[in-house]
Amino acid sequence: MVQVEIINIGDELLIGQVVNTNASQMAQKLNSYGFNVLATSVIGDSGNQIRESLDIALKRADCVLITGGLGPTKDDITKKILAEYFDSNLVINKEVEQHVESYFNRKQLPFTETNRAQALVPEKCKVIFNPVGTAPGMCFEKNGKLIVSMPGVPFEMRLMMGKVIEIMQNFFNQCTKILHKTLLYANIGESFLSDMICDFEDTLPEYISLAYLPKSNTIRLRLTAKTDEDIDLEKILDEKVNQLIALTKEYFMGFEIDNVAAILGKELISLNKTLSVAESCTGGYIAHLITSNAGSSKYFKGSVTAYANQTKENILGVETNTLLQYGAVSKEVALQMSAGVMRALQTDYAISTTGIAGPEGGSEEKPVGTVWISVCSHKKKVVEKHFFPTTRDNFIERVSNQALLMLIKLIKEENPS
Amino acid sequence: MVQVEIINIGDELLIGQVVNTNASQMAQKLNSYGFNVLATSVIGDSGNQIRESLDIALKRADCVLITGGLGPTKDDITKKILAEYFDSNLVINKEVEQHVESYFNRKQLPFTETNRAQALVPEKCKVIFNPVGTAPGMCFEKNGKLIVSMPGVPFEMRLMMGKVIEIMQNFFNQCTKILHKTLLYANIGESFLSDMICDFEDTLPEYISLAYLPKSNTIRLRLTAKTDEDIDLEKILDEKVNQLIALTKEYFMGFEIDNVAAILGKELISLNKTLSVAESCTGGYIAHLITSNAGSSKYFKGSVTAYANQTKENILGVETNTLLQYGAVSKEVALQMSAGVMRALQTDYAISTTGIAGPEGGSEEKPVGTVWISVCSHKKKVVEKHFFPTTRDNFIERVSNQALLMLIKLIKEENPS
Repeated sequence: MVQVEIINIGDELLIGQVVNTNASQMAQKLNSYGFNVLATSVIGDSGNQIRESLDIALKRADCVLITGGLGPTKDDITKKILAEYFDSNLVINKEVEQHVESYFNRKQLPFTETNRAQALVPEKCKVIFNPVGTAPGMCFEKNGKLIVSMPGVPFEMRLMMGKVIEIMQNFFNQCTKILHKTLLYANIGESFLSDMICDFEDTLPEYISLAYLPKSNTIRLRLTAKTDEDIDLEKILDEKVNQLIALTKEYFMGFEIDNVAAILGKELISLNKTLSVAESCTGGYIAHLITSNAGSSKYFKGSVTAYANQTKENILGVETNTLLQYGAVSKEVALQMSAGVMRALQTDYAISTTGIAGPEGGSEEKPVGTVWISVCSHKKKVVEKHFFPTTRDNFIERVSNQALLMLIKLIKEENPS
Repeated sequence: MVQVEIINIGDELLIGQVVNTNASQMAQKLNSYGFNVLATSVIGDSGNQIRESLDIALKRADCVLITGGLGPTKDDITKKILAEYFDSNLVINKEVEQHVESYFNRKQLPFTETNRAQALVPEKCKVIFNPVGTAPGMCFEKNGKLIVSMPGVPFEMRLMMGKVIEIMQNFFNQCTKILHKTLLYANIGESFLSDMICDFEDTLPEYISLAYLPKSNTIRLRLTAKTDEDIDLEKILDEKVNQLIALTKEYFMGFEIDNVAAILGKELISLNKTLSVAESCTGGYIAHLITSNAGSSKYFKGSVTAYANQTKENILGVETNTLLQYGAVSKEVALQMSAGVMRALQTDYAISTTGIAGPEGGSEEKPVGTVWISVCSHKKKVVEKHFFPTTRDNFIERVSNQALLMLIKLIKEENPS
């Protein structure tokens, strides 16, 4: 198995200003392609440290992936140090130069010498083109080992990792096949699900393993198939997944494990129905989750974030009396909000939330963490009270997730397949 | 200055299942007490790796902090390896044993031999009591260097770090002072800012350093002051920061470097003004950024996510003719959206966005990445065209950020301090 080490360079990581998400994202991707991550390290923008870490990593690993230190300013020295380390001169790369120049032209910014220096690369390296930034990636080879340097900006790194995996597969002639398939479940506890599929688990071949990953109010079930043998792994895994779904149909939500909004979107597209949302305590987050999915304009007509009571009344038509009598965080207001946004935006389904995200604003009767969630169609209205006493961010996330799951359930009940 | 290395042990960190937040939290704490973090590394639960990493770290650092691998199960081997490394026998620590036993009694769980083994510690170590878990911390001394092992569970580690800092301060008789100050800039490129403050940089004493951290359409500029001498570091750094702000006033946004919405919120609270938002392409994300801040209900009355044209017309009052003549992604529609939401929600300021987030929906005239952003008050309307050809997520983030920055600029112009 190919052993990989990751080195993330950047003073900002060492003073703890930025959490190093690059290491875990890279590790996850590498693992899913059958590469083993031996160690990761974070060092500062220092020539000595870069050289020393490379020495250490190259002693024990087959491949070293480096991020960071590729910006145009004085404190970014990775490129210069790598050129020296691999005994190579810095030369202008025409393709990169053109790309950087057009990048600045498009932004109507002058193309200075500092910017042109972004196109300087060590002569001996193979350049990996960076379509979304100005710093290119660089591949080096030394004694049969592969060293890749990438930008540290997370989304530039993420986009480049696909290409890097390809380069690694070719370089190491990697042929271990690993497939993951993860299923999302809701409205069922871990032990009940486990009992339900107990017999099925016994039918799994030894190269397919199963893991339970509970999260908030859902369970993710991950099947991993891993082999060096020449079998149709995808077909076998798909068969097993289909058997599993048939067994657990009632609680199975979909494959988009971290994206309940995408599961809902698929349902709505297949039914050719539309959706609107009225948010109080979730403050726009449900709309954001929905619109993060490309193509959501097919079913999502919009949302109203009604933070002020005035907005609830004027835009959503919540009655003043209801607000006075029951308060904004109440079953009655939640129901009027979902009905109101469905009417105002003329949609087939609607979601509403009203609760106390905290840290302030709670009372004995309605403590921080209290929320009413409603989902509705023209035929049916559902409203549920939940209590998530946690941080503000986590409250918003859990309420949003729960609201989306409630609507999926309602749609499935109205449209049994 | 005391040099520290951090080693986080745990297979789960290497497969990317868990993001390593421990390293950044420890680094932040260490920095704020004047300890310099030289490097951090993540390794697996492997004896060889632990020994090798300790060898490397002890060569270059004065102090090594280790987390993880202290659980009761077989895969956790840190304690055993450390005992061997420091040539020490494992003995039962009475205080820890009592603590662990009462911990299990309180939870009404049986106290097994595996659990009792949590009280085994190397004879030569100084135990750090863990009030919230079963694994104790351990301090070792070797050739004038300090080695500390802590549990990997983030909240256990966080609680223990206070004690560890105390131990380090005594051990090293530490008196280094270190201060960071980070400034947020917008509407200016990195190289231009660098040119602008080039002379200022030369006036910095050698104990103050400066780093550029570009992110989306902003730049964070970090000043770090670090000294062993008995000078008023805070006063000197503040003076330098004030000089810097005076030089760059036009582009300086504030100190809340990762939260432009919070900067905007502070401005609105201090002026006692209200805000509403009309979002098309940002799909609720601006509202989410605003409402993520506790207390935002003081100034945020709500938002309309107007994905469908119908919603733009019915709720925001955008004219049908304008939509037909110029299209939804246009200067004219952006202006009508901000004016419309300001009117409908009766606020002092408003923001609107309309653009093509992609990946579908672009045309030659209006390619994916095109966006019109408008901000307005009752006195002034601003509208800008931007082009962010990137991923959907990143587009939404950059547009949202830019919109918030535009409103801060408008408010600053209307209310010069």
